[in-house]
Amino acid sequence: MNTADLRYPGSRRIYIPGKLHPYIRVSMREVEQEDSLFPDGSSEKNEAVRVYDCSGAWGDENFRGSVEQGLPALRAEWIAARNDTERTRQGYLRGKDAACPPTQRTYARQGIITPEMEYVAIRENMGREAAFKALYDQFPHEKSRPEAIQHRLEELGTGMPRPSTLEADPDFSPASLTRRAELHYQHPAEQRSGSRMPAFFTPEFVRDEIAAGRALIPANINHPEAEPMIIGRNFLCKINANIGNSAISSGIEEEVEKLRWAIHWGADTVMDLSTGNDIHRTREWILRNSPVPIGTVPMYQALEKCSGRVEHLSWPIFRDTLIEQACQGVDYVTIHAALLQRFVPHTARRATGIVSRGGSIIARWMMLHQEENFLYTHWEEICRILSLYDVAVSIGDGLRPGSIADANDFAQLAELEIQGELTRTAWAHGVQVMNEGPGHVPLHLVPENMQKQLEWCHEAPFYTLGPLTSDIAPGYDHITGALGGALIAQRGCAMLCYVTRKEHLGLPDKEDVREGVVTYKLAAHAADLAKGHPGAQLRDNALAKARFEFRWEDQFNLSLDPHKARAYHDITLPHSSAKKAHFCSMCGPDFCAMRLSQDIRKMEFP
Amino acid sequence: MNTADLRYPGSRRIYIPGKLHPYIRVSMREVEQEDSLFPDGSSEKNEAVRVYDCSGAWGDENFRGSVEQGLPALRAEWIAARNDTERTRQGYLRGKDAACPPTQRTYARQGIITPEMEYVAIRENMGREAAFKALYDQFPHEKSRPEAIQHRLEELGTGMPRPSTLEADPDFSPASLTRRAELHYQHPAEQRSGSRMPAFFTPEFVRDEIAAGRALIPANINHPEAEPMIIGRNFLCKINANIGNSAISSGIEEEVEKLRWAIHWGADTVMDLSTGNDIHRTREWILRNSPVPIGTVPMYQALEKCSGRVEHLSWPIFRDTLIEQACQGVDYVTIHAALLQRFVPHTARRATGIVSRGGSIIARWMMLHQEENFLYTHWEEICRILSLYDVAVSIGDGLRPGSIADANDFAQLAELEIQGELTRTAWAHGVQVMNEGPGHVPLHLVPENMQKQLEWCHEAPFYTLGPLTSDIAPGYDHITGALGGALIAQRGCAMLCYVTRKEHLGLPDKEDVREGVVTYKLAAHAADLAKGHPGAQLRDNALAKARFEFRWEDQFNLSLDPHKARAYHDITLPHSSAKKAHFCSMCGPDFCAMRLSQDIRKMEFP
Repeated sequence: MNTADLRYPGSRRIYIPGKLHPYIRVSMREVEQEDSLFPDGSSEKNEAVRVYDCSGAWGDENFRGSVEQGLPALRAEWIAARNDTERTRQGYLRGKDAACPPTQRTYARQGIITPEMEYVAIRENMGREAAFKALYDQFPHEKSRPEAIQHRLEELGTGMPRPSTLEADPDFSPASLTRRAELHYQHPAEQRSGSRMPAFFTPEFVRDEIAAGRALIPANINHPEAEPMIIGRNFLCKINANIGNSAISSGIEEEVEKLRWAIHWGADTVMDLSTGNDIHRTREWILRNSPVPIGTVPMYQALEKCSGRVEHLSWPIFRDTLIEQACQGVDYVTIHAALLQRFVPHTARRATGIVSRGGSIIARWMMLHQEENFLYTHWEEICRILSLYDVAVSIGDGLRPGSIADANDFAQLAELEIQGELTRTAWAHGVQVMNEGPGHVPLHLVPENMQKQLEWCHEAPFYTLGPLTSDIAPGYDHITGALGGALIAQRGCAMLCYVTRKEHLGLPDKEDVREGVVTYKLAAHAADLAKGHPGAQLRDNALAKARFEFRWEDQFNLSLDPHKARAYHDITLPHSSAKKAHFCSMCGPDFCAMRLSQDIRKMEFP
Repeated sequence: MNTADLRYPGSRRIYIPGKLHPYIRVSMREVEQEDSLFPDGSSEKNEAVRVYDCSGAWGDENFRGSVEQGLPALRAEWIAARNDTERTRQGYLRGKDAACPPTQRTYARQGIITPEMEYVAIRENMGREAAFKALYDQFPHEKSRPEAIQHRLEELGTGMPRPSTLEADPDFSPASLTRRAELHYQHPAEQRSGSRMPAFFTPEFVRDEIAAGRALIPANINHPEAEPMIIGRNFLCKINANIGNSAISSGIEEEVEKLRWAIHWGADTVMDLSTGNDIHRTREWILRNSPVPIGTVPMYQALEKCSGRVEHLSWPIFRDTLIEQACQGVDYVTIHAALLQRFVPHTARRATGIVSRGGSIIARWMMLHQEENFLYTHWEEICRILSLYDVAVSIGDGLRPGSIADANDFAQLAELEIQGELTRTAWAHGVQVMNEGPGHVPLHLVPENMQKQLEWCHEAPFYTLGPLTSDIAPGYDHITGALGGALIAQRGCAMLCYVTRKEHLGLPDKEDVREGVVTYKLAAHAADLAKGHPGAQLRDNALAKARFEFRWEDQFNLSLDPHKARAYHDITLPHSSAKKAHFCSMCGPDFCAMRLSQDIRKMEFP
């Protein structure tokens, strides 16, 4: 399969217009559904389900562009209209005024709602605009009557009638049985640090979250092709997929194809971790063809400029590399500035030392030069550069644990605290910030990572790699990572970096990327359900209903990976008539629980 | 690949003898390791790692038996020596005295330590006997000096020197930085209901857990081929794999091969869910070849005897089926006795009604007959039958939720409370008990399932199916289920029933079974680490050390699926010389963090 075959069956691209900014068109995918057919011959219409879509123009069946042309510059006019940028001699955009840089953070702090902010508000609502408009018309003073509409809001959020507790059997009411309503609508106390989901995302809410630093929209002014998306714990949990050639294999065309492949399956951002030759040219192709934000680790290219000799690294080389990438349009950069010289000796007795590439490079530099980390000592200069292009910074965790044995140790936590210090400084320069997190962490130590990050890093979004909850499953590390990822996302982690099943073993191929992206998509979705994201459960409910009614085609089409779901069904029941069967291959017709259960519905109750 | 190819590379079978019962030989797998080689030319021996092994004689490279002969009757003499059974006219064993049935629970309550109990104690310690003997010799009065040996115990448990907090950099001690020791060795309060792990498992501890009902050893006196294993939250978390032909496909030979395949990858128990023809004969083959406990749902065969006509089901048909299976040697049976008539109407408004096969059968029977569940009304008789053969009961959850929308609803929780009532009755008859649990449950509702089960079912072991934490990922449901499984196991769930990627779509083939078993094995292991199982982390640490030292062969051999780990590595670096490479294919030689990190170790600190 390649991207040419990448049509989601039963789906079409739709665009939802903005209101504050009527020229914006938020892309989304709409999955059609068949009617429900009942045994008495009656039928019921099922509304199309709208789902979040990362694929940009590549996912629009009417788009006729090519990789050579690149994507249209969606945001070019929005950026120009703000009139706060100028063109450099090389033709790149840059902020005019360092004191008032052209970042989404600056605008938010000034109270401005940008087109980008409205775009993400609509996007996060996942197409529930019409339903909410009707609700608003019905309850014009909803703010003063929160209880009156709470019920309707929940129905809208889940697509299901809300069960009434009064319907419970009056004959059966032991004091110990917790009321259903309490279970469903009251989050356990342990989640308090997790999220604060509104029932409906407004542009104002988006602006306020960005102004508070709790969220960011990575959107370099030189990457106008990107569709705005938001990273923050009070929004849908996002996932990142890594691509990038290493010295050992892979080429440019392959990397662009991997990008399109990753976003097709749902990668919200993509990091280009190239370390081989042609770093600049590879990145250019990726940026011009990417509708999602692109992240990098500039240190890799800086080291490439030193022919891999760590001792030759220097601040000027790094600075020039950073400017080069900012001009090109990189949306966020990982910088390992919080790894201080005095932390390094604490890794010597670790089971697995330093496992972050960026971290080990800067650690080695410090050892060789006996100097403090130049990324730390030049942090303000770095922030000034980033702010001029609205490059967000992802403060790296160079000392993340590489094994269960090293989790939550002194070195890791010491660096986390410095990440918090650097976060404040970056914010002061108008830079949007997130913090990177582990790594290898057993389940019981995961919550403390989230708690400490929230506290020490002032609620800046957390962006973790996994965490991987065990070391014994190479070949299955997409899953050990998803276990920790779902848990930390539930507690408030804003973005998960995927881990593929090739982790620790080799470079992922396309099937590994697909499996990895879908795995993290479902981990993020499981967390969104647990966080109470108001629209997340709509899709689960639609799929569950399709399943219960044996609408096999809808069941496939609503799933995260329709091709795989259908292929698995085909293996046992290959005939197309089986897609209409009122039972499934697992239990056979006589033992089908759903079939028996449907019969119960038809029966009379005493 | 088939079971003939199933040798774990670099491994050999070992047997550890008992002490109280010197004739028992506990099987285990030992993974050899290469020496560590250091750049200065020195080397260091790495001890072999012992791992829990479910494969029985099939995993012994010296075993020369065949499927036609079946496995040796390991426990026949242990059972005979107890002199509390008699042979029926059909040649089956049965307890002599209904008032004092031959169950592990009876023995435990009498203070007896059976060979089975000593077997599982040794098994759970995973070969740490020698280390602990040395420790006991060193600290003969360890019980009176708990603090003195705690440090050493932890070192033994992890195979790593315990880091001292005093080693922390004195220059860096912010008040907010939690001490490493606290993070590592103090479990968060939320885990209090999870587990109570001893540092070392003694036969006495096993006996006491069984007597309290917190654990069970499913071991039918007519299944002497089985190796004892224990299910309880203060032991290693176990996993179950389902096999069984349905009306649509599969045959006997295939089912036996699936059994061997499942236990090779680590299934602790196997449920035979056959519903087609030849149920009895299929089961016979499976039992005679199974070194792990076999579970069934007797209702499936009872319904088969009624030609699939639910209305013809009756207590006598069910009773006879139960006796037939108990005589044959089934170790535990799922019985949906807690699904009461008055709960059924509460499922009519559910998104997905009743999704348990057993539950839907009995629900339909109650609707047709307008009578109470005959499994509930005949519960005491069921318990008397089970007790005579030491068949454990797994009280089914016929109303488990089949979708996120139905999680933790009235019907589900009402049945759970009845499960608790039935648990007490079964215990009173000497029957070993566990309770089955959901199902489809979003992450934030998972903990309440565990809490309520512990409270309402008096700490009987919980045995859950997943739970699946989302409905939108058919084709990936082994993962949605592992997310919930790891979480609930961490909280105290004793056994996880695996879910394959074919769930909801079709019957699993061998690759699906392998992927499913390994996925649940890693979820269970992640939970064991989090519960603080004293030996669980040994394997992680050995693998992490092998990884850090680029001992690729050891890294493969120590993993849950060595064949897959090696195959993935081969794809990028196929040459055997690459298995000695001091870098990996992901970063290439210049960017290898582990390599850079090893260099740091060699450096002088200021």
